[in-house]
Amino acid sequence: MYDSINDANRAIVEAISSGQPVLVDVVQARDAIPVLAGEQKVLLHAGPPIRFEEMTPPMQGSCVGALLFERWAATEEQARAMLAAGEIRFEPCHHHDAVGPMGGITSPSMAVVVVENRQGGNRAYCTMNEGIGKVLRFGAYDAEVVARLEWMRDVLGPALAQALRQTADGYALIPLISRAITMGDEFHQRNIAASALFAKDMAPLLARTDVDRGDVAQVLQFLSDTDQFFLNLAMAACKSVMDQARTVQEGSIVTAMTRNGKDFGIRVSGLGDQWFTAPVNTPQGLYFTGYSQEQACPDMGDSAITETFGLGGMSMIAAPGVTRFVGAGGFTDAVAISDEMAEIVVDFNGTLPIPTWDFQGAPLGIDVRKVVKTSITPIINTGIASLEPGVGQIGAGTVRAPLACFVQALEALAARYGVAADD
Amino acid sequence: MYDSINDANRAIVEAISSGQPVLVDVVQARDAIPVLAGEQKVLLHAGPPIRFEEMTPPMQGSCVGALLFERWAATEEQARAMLAAGEIRFEPCHHHDAVGPMGGITSPSMAVVVVENRQGGNRAYCTMNEGIGKVLRFGAYDAEVVARLEWMRDVLGPALAQALRQTADGYALIPLISRAITMGDEFHQRNIAASALFAKDMAPLLARTDVDRGDVAQVLQFLSDTDQFFLNLAMAACKSVMDQARTVQEGSIVTAMTRNGKDFGIRVSGLGDQWFTAPVNTPQGLYFTGYSQEQACPDMGDSAITETFGLGGMSMIAAPGVTRFVGAGGFTDAVAISDEMAEIVVDFNGTLPIPTWDFQGAPLGIDVRKVVKTSITPIINTGIASLEPGVGQIGAGTVRAPLACFVQALEALAARYGVAADD
Repeated sequence: MYDSINDANRAIVEAISSGQPVLVDVVQARDAIPVLAGEQKVLLHAGPPIRFEEMTPPMQGSCVGALLFERWAATEEQARAMLAAGEIRFEPCHHHDAVGPMGGITSPSMAVVVVENRQGGNRAYCTMNEGIGKVLRFGAYDAEVVARLEWMRDVLGPALAQALRQTADGYALIPLISRAITMGDEFHQRNIAASALFAKDMAPLLARTDVDRGDVAQVLQFLSDTDQFFLNLAMAACKSVMDQARTVQEGSIVTAMTRNGKDFGIRVSGLGDQWFTAPVNTPQGLYFTGYSQEQACPDMGDSAITETFGLGGMSMIAAPGVTRFVGAGGFTDAVAISDEMAEIVVDFNGTLPIPTWDFQGAPLGIDVRKVVKTSITPIINTGIASLEPGVGQIGAGTVRAPLACFVQALEALAARYGVAADD
Repeated sequence: MYDSINDANRAIVEAISSGQPVLVDVVQARDAIPVLAGEQKVLLHAGPPIRFEEMTPPMQGSCVGALLFERWAATEEQARAMLAAGEIRFEPCHHHDAVGPMGGITSPSMAVVVVENRQGGNRAYCTMNEGIGKVLRFGAYDAEVVARLEWMRDVLGPALAQALRQTADGYALIPLISRAITMGDEFHQRNIAASALFAKDMAPLLARTDVDRGDVAQVLQFLSDTDQFFLNLAMAACKSVMDQARTVQEGSIVTAMTRNGKDFGIRVSGLGDQWFTAPVNTPQGLYFTGYSQEQACPDMGDSAITETFGLGGMSMIAAPGVTRFVGAGGFTDAVAISDEMAEIVVDFNGTLPIPTWDFQGAPLGIDVRKVVKTSITPIINTGIASLEPGVGQIGAGTVRAPLACFVQALEALAARYGVAADD
């Protein structure tokens, strides 16, 4: 359909930069994701396909928590026995219009945000951020974790859904992302501005629902306390935009990057649904007091969809406040990282100017050819989970995508289209 | 008491950087400011002392609005007659522990925030931000303006006061300013991050008051819509800190900068309550559609207390997002401005690291000697009012403090202490 791979790439980056993700609802996952609505017990997980036995301990811990939350099991022992016996079917979030942070474990009754990309009409889903400390996404599964998931399903989700129904046409996410990028968010490890803007925008809407006033206060407190709340909205927004962009089924642009704790997988616009994978790296970064690199779980989570879209580590310079948090140095280091990332993209996103980059737009469209030619792989800002399930987050850092999956993808492009890194 | 002027200056900047302003209450001005509690009709105004006849048209318009709001007059004509007849006594805000934005007109029934500096126990007061459009501080005084002031007195103020009573010990402002400086606020023309953080922090507290639920929704909506809400809190915070610092009655540090539309005035630590004044400049900047430089009112407002503290234009580099808004260029221009301001201060504020300045602290302690020696005067980020009363804000820009007041102050320091610019 396109005269050249560059023309196809141009169409893809235009689709990305003109995406219009809008938060329209919060529902239970089964009401939005058909595979979770059947009789069979199904869990979604982060990353390319993986079997339970191959998962990291925290990802397995998340599965235990999901079984307890769904009341498929009454005890941890029972849950682990069911999982070991293969009674649970696993599917990647990415195969079902969804993305999940860290373990990405998503079960039918969990509350998910519904983001519609008005440009294509497609939708994407993501669970909501549980806050910090002991949380399911980092592998914790005790009674506190399950109780919070129940509250999110029964109170937080329905309250936000009622609030959103008061908006004329949903809550547009690109204008918010654009405002917050001016406020130092990169939308992977730093979402404090977007979360605050979202909380203050929702507050009057929540006050005008018929939700019990005590519950409204609790919801407002949760939104106020949860500085990373917007991460999951950003993930769903990026997923909805990248999924629409990849309907252009040509070109060499990366349309998904994700990790399951074992493999790092990418999808490429001209190569359909195929995953190109390589072993994940383990993040390097700064650790909370009492923890160290030896306890770090290998890289996991669908949250690298933010980097795929051009945010997160790609836009490090937008968030000098996060550079230190992830152990990546000071302001000049942040500039150097985004300047390096600029070498592997085909354009800059004019809808997301970065003031600290002299108003240059966020990096736009990672080109497999450029990655292979330069050997520069995307840098990802990430939370670091403890290898031990139940502990949760122990730090934050950066991790590189492994070059091997880009090399494989380029080989596949060469085989199919005769494309080379130098084209 | 101090061995040298540098020792005195050191004591002052230590007092500034260790200030602990805490928002403790919202009350009617008469309940906090004795001069407004008497029988006599008194209005506070911005800047050094000025008579009604000398005020700019918008500042006079603010006076009309205040008389209508206080029901001292029933019509504009009656208000203007009373003002012309000298029936109203005028006092500078700065003489009564207060600061006021733009015209700074503060009348007894207006709601004011109460900020206590825990370091010294002293308090400072400021009216609350009315939002944009037709507002009293820019000289508007129609029924809509008066009705909003009534709502702020009767609903917004009491609701926030109730919310604050739920905090253990008030709402600490330096931690908030420190967080928001990482989010691109400079706290004069850009307060969007601090305002959002404040709104989301107040939201659950407001929900837990016994204020009518519809009123809570209105308050949350107002806080959500008012991106400059935090400016007035920042002003009161800076005033409380600078007033405590100036109890060190020696040295050459500027402890207040303010403008009344006619004169720009400064106070200096070693020179007590004396104002050193020179004619104000008119801001240069960008204008809203339909307005231009010819319609710009000369510089006014106590808001330059933020620059005195080291924020606003002094910290331009913290807010590259505002640099364009005030017509001051791009990121490199913002760097250049703060680098220039660094030449006239004695230190940097370690409690307010600026990520975009490679984590150097905000400029701390404007030294009259350095200003005169370099001829670099502080740059102030400011809103621009229409010369015509009732119109309101027509743009935003920057304005330089006039050198003459610093020269006068240095002459006074020379006369009293034998200090020269080269000391």
